[in-house]
Amino acid sequence: MLISDQYFMELALRKAKKAKEKGEVPVGAVIVKNGIVVSASNNSVEKDLSSLMHAEIKAIYRAQKELENWRLTGCVLYVTLEPCLMCCGAILLSRIKKLVYAAADPKGGAAASLYRTLEDARLNHRVEVVSGVMETEAAALLADFFKEKRLN
Amino acid sequence: MLISDQYFMELALRKAKKAKEKGEVPVGAVIVKNGIVVSASNNSVEKDLSSLMHAEIKAIYRAQKELENWRLTGCVLYVTLEPCLMCCGAILLSRIKKLVYAAADPKGGAAASLYRTLEDARLNHRVEVVSGVMETEAAALLADFFKEKRLN
Repeated sequence: MLISDQYFMELALRKAKKAKEKGEVPVGAVIVKNGIVVSASNNSVEKDLSSLMHAEIKAIYRAQKELENWRLTGCVLYVTLEPCLMCCGAILLSRIKKLVYAAADPKGGAAASLYRTLEDARLNHRVEVVSGVMETEAAALLADFFKEKRLN
Repeated sequence: MLISDQYFMELALRKAKKAKEKGEVPVGAVIVKNGIVVSASNNSVEKDLSSLMHAEIKAIYRAQKELENWRLTGCVLYVTLEPCLMCCGAILLSRIKKLVYAAADPKGGAAASLYRTLEDARLNHRVEVVSGVMETEAAALLADFFKEKRLN
């Protein structure tokens, strides 16, 4: 694991914790270009009444605005949970260079668990994938959230 | 083909033509609930500097705001081109009941061409799919757009 990967994943985890405090599924995302944070977001599906408001989608949108370009060439996306089909599709469309995620999502993950969309040679872009960075912390955060939800 | 399917696809095609006039890839989408149009959008990736701004994503977001609910239960999405991975993921997450599309997208379609994501039994939602409604018109619009683009 790169030290920088751990550093940026910690930022994403901080975002995920923010989501949890607000009753949202705790997922956070950070986009980095040349070692500099371009955007950071957390899941806000409930607050925004929109299932599109995954942390990755918001981080990609903000990075595109920040860089004034829909092509996020050279950007790395850090996210605390393996991205779903929608988010993997968005990652591909925005030409992100590399994805680093923490916990796997066996029920919906489209980077490795259910699909390997980011390495599909039929599509016009491929993304380098690193998984398991700070996996324990991210998985515990999610497990705690769903446990508390069941108890309430 | 249902007469109503043709009617709503004509609306989506009108949106696609609007996109073309503005130099955007001509794709239009309409969301209908109980026979009533809830939202209508066109692709605006270039204008909005965001690869997320596909017609389907915008239509889903607007329908969620209009219905004040992220669950688009009972809704039908009409779109002039087979949705990509991102848009199929968004369709699944928003619990749309049925997708009707016009032209197939052999290079990126995730409803039938490259993937059949909307009927994946491992995911927590399935979507009824109808294809080929006003296919000729939608495909011609796209072909004209790319032909003109190559000439310019």
